[in-house]
Amino acid sequence: MLKIYYAPGTCALASHIALEEAGADYTAERLDFKSNQQNSPGYLEINPKGRVPSLVTDRGVLTETPAMLAYIAQSFPQAKLAPLDDAFAFAQAQAFNSYLCSTVHVNHAHKGRGARWATEETSFADMKRKVPQSVGASFALIESKMLKGPWVMGESYTICDPYLFTLSGWLEGDSVDIATLPKVADHRKRMLERAAVKKVLAAEQAPA
Amino acid sequence: MLKIYYAPGTCALASHIALEEAGADYTAERLDFKSNQQNSPGYLEINPKGRVPSLVTDRGVLTETPAMLAYIAQSFPQAKLAPLDDAFAFAQAQAFNSYLCSTVHVNHAHKGRGARWATEETSFADMKRKVPQSVGASFALIESKMLKGPWVMGESYTICDPYLFTLSGWLEGDSVDIATLPKVADHRKRMLERAAVKKVLAAEQAPA
Repeated sequence: MLKIYYAPGTCALASHIALEEAGADYTAERLDFKSNQQNSPGYLEINPKGRVPSLVTDRGVLTETPAMLAYIAQSFPQAKLAPLDDAFAFAQAQAFNSYLCSTVHVNHAHKGRGARWATEETSFADMKRKVPQSVGASFALIESKMLKGPWVMGESYTICDPYLFTLSGWLEGDSVDIATLPKVADHRKRMLERAAVKKVLAAEQAPA
Repeated sequence: MLKIYYAPGTCALASHIALEEAGADYTAERLDFKSNQQNSPGYLEINPKGRVPSLVTDRGVLTETPAMLAYIAQSFPQAKLAPLDDAFAFAQAQAFNSYLCSTVHVNHAHKGRGARWATEETSFADMKRKVPQSVGASFALIESKMLKGPWVMGESYTICDPYLFTLSGWLEGDSVDIATLPKVADHRKRMLERAAVKKVLAAEQAPA
């Protein structure tokens, strides 16, 4: 039995959806970020980084979204969530997810997590002002060069899709108009029609 | 035949070493960052992100270090650069590399690449001052919780090792004293003794 720790509105949504799409036997436990539960002693024993997601397996705990997504795809091959028999195609999927993790998410994080990288309030405000531009540029590249359509990798739904869906859900809050990104907008619409996505969103948004 | 594009002093070193360790048939082409060659029209056709590394294969171009490292390990299984037959162990290796990519490298980048995330010189100076603390905290976590020793994953040398070696090479410039990180320092020393590492460092540091 797998267990995912998540908080609503975070990148944990991607792995949560992937578990559901895979047909995995799993439970999901919500952390309360408002009370800083991710930095409680109990949770820090599970994930010393104090972040979500964490995936508890019978072999130990996994962290980092791109690694967890690949793990879910490899552990449930019948769900066909990645091109597991083609190292080049698998690397393309992984490169997409790595870009989301290390560039797009990081750009977004400068809106509210500036204290990770600076100290002064004036710097936080400056970082925040830049987010529409930096996130907008990343998504313009996704729109023009990376999202093959209808799914990220083309005709097949993969572990790239819940991850893109998760980050495109932050566009409005980042003041980037999704109407300027028609392929991303179409992707979002298709994702919202999937049963697994509906189920996970309902679970994450249910009252605690 | 594979071709890697790199620039000295960048994270491309990790994949460059991995290609050498794998016994791959490859060429390496140096980009001149001082003349901004990574943003030249010719290179942007290869990698529209304007970054290194890029790996040109007969199937197309791959980017993003964690994806390239996994690709090299999967393409040259006889080199045993990753636990390819164990999805959990492979995910642990990938989680380590994802942490280096999305947290450690990003912390470091705030020293000289602040313009990615802010606009004001005062913000760049503030970011720069925080780097010893943010990079130091990441490496303290690597030292205490992540680096199993002697190699990152334990007894076996993997794709995590050239990546850690690449980023630990930036510690001095980031004003983090490697003497406070004895396992990381030992790892660095072991890496410098490897024939593949010596060969790649000589190639990257040779006059253009």
